[in-house]
Amino acid sequence: MDHHQARQWLATAVAEAEAGLAEGGIPIGAALYGADGTLLGRGHNLRVQDGDPSMHAETSAFRDAGRQRSYRGTTMVTTLSPCWYCSGLVRQFGISRVVVGESETFHGGHDWLAEHGVEIIELNDPGCVRMMREFVAAKPELWNEDIGE
Amino acid sequence: MDHHQARQWLATAVAEAEAGLAEGGIPIGAALYGADGTLLGRGHNLRVQDGDPSMHAETSAFRDAGRQRSYRGTTMVTTLSPCWYCSGLVRQFGISRVVVGESETFHGGHDWLAEHGVEIIELNDPGCVRMMREFVAAKPELWNEDIGE
Repeated sequence: MDHHQARQWLATAVAEAEAGLAEGGIPIGAALYGADGTLLGRGHNLRVQDGDPSMHAETSAFRDAGRQRSYRGTTMVTTLSPCWYCSGLVRQFGISRVVVGESETFHGGHDWLAEHGVEIIELNDPGCVRMMREFVAAKPELWNEDIGE
Repeated sequence: MDHHQARQWLATAVAEAEAGLAEGGIPIGAALYGADGTLLGRGHNLRVQDGDPSMHAETSAFRDAGRQRSYRGTTMVTTLSPCWYCSGLVRQFGISRVVVGESETFHGGHDWLAEHGVEIIELNDPGCVRMMREFVAAKPELWNEDIGE
């Protein structure tokens, strides 16, 4: 997968993160794309909005995609390096590829996924870094709650 | 933690699994107990009932517990060895202990959790084994879908 395509798909995840921020939530977004490039699901963190700690951006996009018989060839695009919870999701369901908007403000389990055969594309996107940095500075307690720290 | 207490708590997870089975769903149940022994949340797999692949038993119990500032000292009780998705949940949020009803029909990530400091109590419960074995024999396609195989 080339970076041009990855950046196009990242825009969907960024739009989700921005929607979450506008709702007063944690600005992390994600999207799940099928092997043929179809958008299967998209979502953002819903801890604040739904009072639901299980809805990280990636799990929200995964839920939005509904039941799927196989995740072979799918790509999870996320604005931020996936935490262990979301990395476990990717590994268990055999999602083939993860596009990571940035891993500077938080380094989750994407190295572990790479070790287990998942293709990882890191984009080091400055916009994603800025959005998370501003959020963490503004609401450190909320951020720590979301990652169990 | 002693096995007597663990078995009492397992009964809550088993009741959830049985409720899921009665609804036509996948018979896996879980419960999250607080450090003081309070029941924080309980739930079961909801793939069939809600068409929601993100709701495994453990994530369902975690969601039911709502927002928590810390999971230190908490125990996740589950009828079946947690898959990578649910193991990632336990690791990310710092859940201290996992009570595993059985790991004979499915062996998930609980050894990995033990390596990372989570206390694991395996009960090898014959009733849990029987329930899963009958389900997997009756609906192998549904079971494979739920674990991404």
